[in-house]
Amino acid sequence: MNHGFFTIISREEFVRKLKGFVPLDAETADLSLALNRVLADDLIAPHDWPLLDRSCMDGYAVNARDVFGAGESNPGYLECVAALPIDRLPDISLKPGECARIATGGILPDGADGVVMVEHTHAMEDDDTGGTIEIRRSAAPGENVMQRGEDAREGKVALAKGTVMRPQEIGLAAALGFETMKLARRPRVGILSTGDELIPTHQTPVPGQVRDVNTHSLAALVEQAGGVPVPYGIVKDDLEHLSDALGTAIRDNDLVLLSGGSSIGVRDLTVQTIEAMNGAEILAHGVAISPGKPTILGRVGTKPVLGLPGQVTSALVVMHVLILPLIRHLQGDGLAFDRTVRTLRKAELARNLPSKPGREDYVRIRLEEREGQPPLAHPVLGKSGLLRTIVQAHGLACIPAESEGFYGNDLIDVWII
Amino acid sequence: MNHGFFTIISREEFVRKLKGFVPLDAETADLSLALNRVLADDLIAPHDWPLLDRSCMDGYAVNARDVFGAGESNPGYLECVAALPIDRLPDISLKPGECARIATGGILPDGADGVVMVEHTHAMEDDDTGGTIEIRRSAAPGENVMQRGEDAREGKVALAKGTVMRPQEIGLAAALGFETMKLARRPRVGILSTGDELIPTHQTPVPGQVRDVNTHSLAALVEQAGGVPVPYGIVKDDLEHLSDALGTAIRDNDLVLLSGGSSIGVRDLTVQTIEAMNGAEILAHGVAISPGKPTILGRVGTKPVLGLPGQVTSALVVMHVLILPLIRHLQGDGLAFDRTVRTLRKAELARNLPSKPGREDYVRIRLEEREGQPPLAHPVLGKSGLLRTIVQAHGLACIPAESEGFYGNDLIDVWII
Repeated sequence: MNHGFFTIISREEFVRKLKGFVPLDAETADLSLALNRVLADDLIAPHDWPLLDRSCMDGYAVNARDVFGAGESNPGYLECVAALPIDRLPDISLKPGECARIATGGILPDGADGVVMVEHTHAMEDDDTGGTIEIRRSAAPGENVMQRGEDAREGKVALAKGTVMRPQEIGLAAALGFETMKLARRPRVGILSTGDELIPTHQTPVPGQVRDVNTHSLAALVEQAGGVPVPYGIVKDDLEHLSDALGTAIRDNDLVLLSGGSSIGVRDLTVQTIEAMNGAEILAHGVAISPGKPTILGRVGTKPVLGLPGQVTSALVVMHVLILPLIRHLQGDGLAFDRTVRTLRKAELARNLPSKPGREDYVRIRLEEREGQPPLAHPVLGKSGLLRTIVQAHGLACIPAESEGFYGNDLIDVWII
Repeated sequence: MNHGFFTIISREEFVRKLKGFVPLDAETADLSLALNRVLADDLIAPHDWPLLDRSCMDGYAVNARDVFGAGESNPGYLECVAALPIDRLPDISLKPGECARIATGGILPDGADGVVMVEHTHAMEDDDTGGTIEIRRSAAPGENVMQRGEDAREGKVALAKGTVMRPQEIGLAAALGFETMKLARRPRVGILSTGDELIPTHQTPVPGQVRDVNTHSLAALVEQAGGVPVPYGIVKDDLEHLSDALGTAIRDNDLVLLSGGSSIGVRDLTVQTIEAMNGAEILAHGVAISPGKPTILGRVGTKPVLGLPGQVTSALVVMHVLILPLIRHLQGDGLAFDRTVRTLRKAELARNLPSKPGREDYVRIRLEEREGQPPLAHPVLGKSGLLRTIVQAHGLACIPAESEGFYGNDLIDVWII
């Protein structure tokens, strides 16, 4: 497709090119730093977990045969021979007609194969460790018991390479004794802002000047995706300064974002600067999404370099649609580009939302909550150079490239950002 | 409701008690640390933003009157009198019949009130800064122009107290020159594990011993909600040791989590320990959710203390349902307890899912993706002391307290965790 200025490719094609970049190498990282990161090696269980059969409940360890048919109206009676310690192997063995007091987590003694919850029992004597226990419910073999090896088996993969470490995976790693593990490195993401009109946040703009917004928004987004933002500040928009800064950024980072180049001159300069690097190639001059069309994808050596649209809203949309998934992909996250990982809410469109076929449209949406119904989705229209529209928005509606838009009252997915 | 062991309250009532805790005080924090945190004061715009009318496009600044009715078949012709600098106030004034080359972000000169995109123009002469320009489209006044003050007006609230700082709000704050701002403090969350059977992760368990899983999983969850986890490690489960450790944790933190106390003895000890603190009160002995029933809520002075179920899955569910919202609430997030902030996915239940009315059930769900249809939701049943079930699960299905469950093929919401 030629739009007069540059050749643009579809989002699918752009994503294919992004997927061509190889995930980063691994590093050994502490368990406390693993949240949301990706395992770079299988975690092999060093032992069964649980080590032995354990009780899931407070109650009495029994042999299922001894309580067969027990119920409220026909309780069984067992002799309690011990209160089992929670932290040691029981040193007793249950004989027929016997039971033992057991706490949640306690190991079943020999001769026991099930647990009756304390709620379904009654101690006939006022004696903690002994006496006759009325059993008001039966227990099948294995009932209320965590079996040896149910969580992990010695020598087997407990968590596979590529697993994203959620709090529960962190728990399993801790249970198996992994204080450190191999994780894909967090990509270092160099952020360069270009534009002679830009000034740092602490300066006061005179007419014509604009504070550097993108560095801050992009850094926050990079962080959100698990990358390490490395801001380089504002770079003068001439070939020499930009080449120097880009060279440094590429050397010291895994991915470089250039922002500020939305006007044609700066776009051209961005392309020129990337092309001038050693081993560089421009992979895309644009992508068929709106906003976000003038996005440049380059490769310098093995590293991706992206020229983002200068308009802040466009840059944010491109970050969400393309770059945050790339940052996850570089960490080895197999679902990085999978849209099922987006946070979506169903909402009823408040009015017609037409769209030009041939490009994917991302329309900012403000949600109006309603009692007992899906929220109402109000498109927030406005210029993409303004922040107000995206600040007012709760999310984005994505209109597929082949669609001419949605109708008012359509139930649509709003991607919460 | 009395369940034989302790009085439990509904989730709604439990949440009401959590909401009674007062959000934390504010601190001055750097913009780079603001992501997902909550503004503790209004941000008042120190100046209009944009400072003046700016172009949204590359093109020609025009007076709308001069291009009225222009189109592909009847273009207008204007004399380009300047290429405007992007970083300074233009020093020209357009006369009738004149236009000026303008870049995205450039300030409109006097006499101009609209911009025609460069795509809709043609320079008749090979001259960057002058010559006759063919104008092939009209421009309404204000077209392709960001108006002065559209993003923020001097002296007015640009971002209100209580706003959660997303990347776009961070951008707006940067645009207005805020390098620091007042944010609610991140709650320090003390994490204590009790249980004589617990050992630290680096030790190898002998039968009866269990590595301390909860400290690691809870710390990750606290981090996820924006809190600062402060793990105290394993505390011996007697009144003296636990009281000492709890006293220190309460002194140095904003919220304390006690975990490990799922067996009756440890539960009783937890209640006893909290009650023994100066100015303490037990607000709830349990909550009508499953898993998670044996959750204790106490107050020591103004600070919440929670006794979590010892079973790791139960503790994780309680964290998601009650404690992560509390951590957000303590930061002043008005939507903290609002279920609309959950990440939900529609899925088709693979089989019947019965539930006991009177309590809210949170059933672990594994999703099976399908092409072109909502994913299939498989309940993952299993003992809540095991990690496997929650590691296999993508999320939770919440069955309301008044419901007797769902049917197979029902379309349900799966809360992704």
